[in-house]
Amino acid sequence: MGYNLRLTISCPDKRGLISALSSFVAMHDGNILSADQYVSDGERFFMRLEIEGKGFGLEREEFDAAFAPLARRHGMDWRTSHTDIPKRMSILVSRYDHCLIDILWRWDAGELDADIPLVVSNHPDLAPRVEAYGIPFHHLPVTKATKVEQEAEMLELLSEHEIDVVVLARYMQILGPDFIAAYPEGIINIHHSFLPAFVGADPYRRAHERGVKTIGATAHYVTEELDAGPIIHQDVAHVTHRATVEDLVRLGREVERRVLARAVHWRLEDRILLDGTRTVVFE
Amino acid sequence: MGYNLRLTISCPDKRGLISALSSFVAMHDGNILSADQYVSDGERFFMRLEIEGKGFGLEREEFDAAFAPLARRHGMDWRTSHTDIPKRMSILVSRYDHCLIDILWRWDAGELDADIPLVVSNHPDLAPRVEAYGIPFHHLPVTKATKVEQEAEMLELLSEHEIDVVVLARYMQILGPDFIAAYPEGIINIHHSFLPAFVGADPYRRAHERGVKTIGATAHYVTEELDAGPIIHQDVAHVTHRATVEDLVRLGREVERRVLARAVHWRLEDRILLDGTRTVVFE
Amino acid sequence: MGYNLRLTISCPDKRGLISALSSFVAMHDGNILSADQYVSDGERFFMRLEIEGKGFGLEREEFDAAFAPLARRHGMDWRTSHTDIPKRMSILVSRYDHCLIDILWRWDAGELDADIPLVVSNHPDLAPRVEAYGIPFHHLPVTKATKVEQEAEMLELLSEHEIDVVVLARYMQILGPDFIAAYPEGIINIHHSFLPAFVGADPYRRAHERGVKTIGATAHYVTEELDAGPIIHQDVAHVTHRATVEDLVRLGREVERRVLARAVHWRLEDRILLDGTRTVVFE
Amino acid sequence: MGYNLRLTISCPDKRGLISALSSFVAMHDGNILSADQYVSDGERFFMRLEIEGKGFGLEREEFDAAFAPLARRHGMDWRTSHTDIPKRMSILVSRYDHCLIDILWRWDAGELDADIPLVVSNHPDLAPRVEAYGIPFHHLPVTKATKVEQEAEMLELLSEHEIDVVVLARYMQILGPDFIAAYPEGIINIHHSFLPAFVGADPYRRAHERGVKTIGATAHYVTEELDAGPIIHQDVAHVTHRATVEDLVRLGREVERRVLARAVHWRLEDRILLDGTRTVVFE
Repeated sequence: MGYNLRLTISCPDKRGLISALSSFVAMHDGNILSADQYVSDGERFFMRLEIEGKGFGLEREEFDAAFAPLARRHGMDWRTSHTDIPKRMSILVSRYDHCLIDILWRWDAGELDADIPLVVSNHPDLAPRVEAYGIPFHHLPVTKATKVEQEAEMLELLSEHEIDVVVLARYMQILGPDFIAAYPEGIINIHHSFLPAFVGADPYRRAHERGVKTIGATAHYVTEELDAGPIIHQDVAHVTHRATVEDLVRLGREVERRVLARAVHWRLEDRILLDGTRTVVFE
Repeated sequence: MGYNLRLTISCPDKRGLISALSSFVAMHDGNILSADQYVSDGERFFMRLEIEGKGFGLEREEFDAAFAPLARRHGMDWRTSHTDIPKRMSILVSRYDHCLIDILWRWDAGELDADIPLVVSNHPDLAPRVEAYGIPFHHLPVTKATKVEQEAEMLELLSEHEIDVVVLARYMQILGPDFIAAYPEGIINIHHSFLPAFVGADPYRRAHERGVKTIGATAHYVTEELDAGPIIHQDVAHVTHRATVEDLVRLGREVERRVLARAVHWRLEDRILLDGTRTVVFE
Repeated sequence: MGYNLRLTISCPDKRGLISALSSFVAMHDGNILSADQYVSDGERFFMRLEIEGKGFGLEREEFDAAFAPLARRHGMDWRTSHTDIPKRMSILVSRYDHCLIDILWRWDAGELDADIPLVVSNHPDLAPRVEAYGIPFHHLPVTKATKVEQEAEMLELLSEHEIDVVVLARYMQILGPDFIAAYPEGIINIHHSFLPAFVGADPYRRAHERGVKTIGATAHYVTEELDAGPIIHQDVAHVTHRATVEDLVRLGREVERRVLARAVHWRLEDRILLDGTRTVVFE
Repeated sequence: MGYNLRLTISCPDKRGLISALSSFVAMHDGNILSADQYVSDGERFFMRLEIEGKGFGLEREEFDAAFAPLARRHGMDWRTSHTDIPKRMSILVSRYDHCLIDILWRWDAGELDADIPLVVSNHPDLAPRVEAYGIPFHHLPVTKATKVEQEAEMLELLSEHEIDVVVLARYMQILGPDFIAAYPEGIINIHHSFLPAFVGADPYRRAHERGVKTIGATAHYVTEELDAGPIIHQDVAHVTHRATVEDLVRLGREVERRVLARAVHWRLEDRILLDGTRTVVFE
């Protein structure tokens, strides 16, 4: 088989889980390429296994049936993915293009293993940028009055394209509960501050007013409460008193790009697991 | 003269200030060793000059009278210090010793140019640590009932020892307005988070709950509002989901030490100027 | 006047230079927007002044004649630039596009104040990428046999387009002495290691073999000796034992982009001065 | 049992190793608290397991006999340690005290789980510093003539005290091959540059001459070739043209302290495995 299998698991912790899982793999002649494990507060067990496809005794379509009894016995939440089937990712943007362009460039350079069947925006501005990469651009304008129906339409569009991974690359609309619920594995957002500082609008202006010496960006999963979802990655840049709000915006763009790209990279490699309001990231 | 002179200035911005200041120095045969300048929002002018004592035509005791007319004409706030007269610094601590020890070690290694006539604490625990450096330790226990009078006594003690620079190295008491007012140039505090996130008590526990991927520390000047004073320096450390609250405390100590030491270093070299609720730091 | 004037100076240090310079500006009713100064080892004086055009008493074409006597008396090397006249920049590339694209994106976003009349490459591959930004792309293939004449042609091309600033964005040819001599202010190169480690070819492979835990990139001016010119900026990324050579290349691209963009930004704002084999960077 | 067991393993990679190891633990009712695994270039397998002592069916003195057959079959290099038996660590120093003091402070604060039966120095200067922590200080002066015999004596001294872990905290002597051979698990050294740049003496002076914008420190295992051993950890600090050699030394001390302390921390928790000339660090 020309693919590898990734298996991510979380379940209540108990003795013998690693043994049970690795023995299951060994029993079917599987070779574990990488194994990461974590126990949260002694209570919940998390594991990510990458199993070589070559020589593995379970066909792709046999795996689920073979694994299900073990998973059920231990109460496991589990998912598989196959490295020969790229995830299907869509990016939502508004007018700022820096995060979008960075993702598209990395994707084009082979850094991000995904198909990108479409980019969706509530503004028409970035169409040429997206189409230059051969990716269809959908313009779905949103007003207060049309928000609910437009989100429903967007959901349908994403569903038609069988999108697995949704990334908000500075999408300047707050998503409604139905949209969020449709992606239980998590919609990735980039916020332009080191959360929990400067939740909400205009963080660079507020950072300047407060006179901070560090600005940052945070990639997190979207929840109904604004900027309060599980944090995936954060990074910062040092700034001095000389930096104007415009300088903070410029320097911040660099941090935002880097932080969001890293989070997307991990997501596409199934390295992010949810632990309540926190994330487990097997880097 | 075996000393250099440091002159720090802030005043309303206008044309010709650098010229007026540097010409004043040149007129008295002074050599400017370093000059830093900044204009805040086009409105307020800040400058720091270091003038070589050797060859300078103004004696120490003549400077003020010679400079005052110029300063008055431009509405300058100004201060001088002389590099042969170390500042007199006192450190206030409670029970955590990491920031204190780091400052004392750096001071002993010659990194911090100050006299330290005394360390004051509301707990007796750290006396041996301080006395090992040959520095007197004063124990001033504080209870709710005695707080006001104890602060008054502490102020008197610092005043007797002619203290210029007060540093709170994890001093776990909130200082009253009279104490704060007695040091208008600013009392330096270290807070164990990247402000404005996690103001107040227990920031590491709250950071862990929020699932942050970055922890930090902030050195700032004390104001009556808790953890809201002008920020001098901030730095961070990356953490993963594996870090327990105890790990955050341990990793955070390293950041706190580094951030506070840097702020104290700058303060002793007269590199920090106040710009309303922000600081200008001429690194 | 709708422009500001930048004046950069270096000369032997002596008393009164700041006074002489700022008085010259004041005499002509100039307003100094920013002033940076540095004395290298007590011997050489460096200064950068930004003077507001509005209200300044010297017309653009009068400045040189007015300033020359002062400059001559103090033995100053000096240059001026005007903020309403963008520098003319050309980028040389081969096949790797990450540094190029990053510069073009930043330029397009208004981060880099320059005209880019052409991009030159020894390979045809990146033509579409460059032309998408509306910038002409020149393909000048280079072989061992044709190198000297091709460099002469490139020089002529750059000269025709009145290029001030030459940037090598992973240009994989070693430039000859005539080319280097034609740009005495310095040709900016990005090297994919933290110099002086891993001079020359294949630094990521060698970094992997050495088992380093940090990789880096260095922006420097080109000299005849390979990777030995004055360093402008450096940054690093942490890596673990898990990183393959390919991972280092991927992570390194991010550092290279950031470091080169920063150096170009400083160059375009006249913030880099040469101090022998070192640079003075007034950030 | 009031202790946990740490088991570190390396062996040729093959299918089923994780299963074999975790099944061995499970068979004896062991609970795996943490598991880290890595395969180097598809050829060599590394694993670190932390097993809860409570409930584990193998007594401490039974473990080796029970595990040996499995280890032999797979050609494993393996080691165990028990968390109730602190490692025995000795620190070698010369005259610089910053790394030493930092380790002692962290040890005293409970960050480093070790016994420190003695500190050894070729100079008498730091005796009071060490003895203040209640640790015996041995002065073993070294001259060219006495080097071999002094090293032999030092080895005997360390052997008498049953030292497991040797740390060179800026010990300014090159150790001979017999000394190095006596600690096959590795002697930790701190070098004050980001290796492989500035191998050997005076790295800060040479860094200043080269005009670098970043300085660093490297913790590595000692080999006979100077500063060429496997790298454990590296970090850097940014510097500007304003930094003198003395400033680099001062700023570098901070990086050295941090990097060495981190390496020692990992060593004491059995997180560092050797992979030829590289290290595997299970952070």
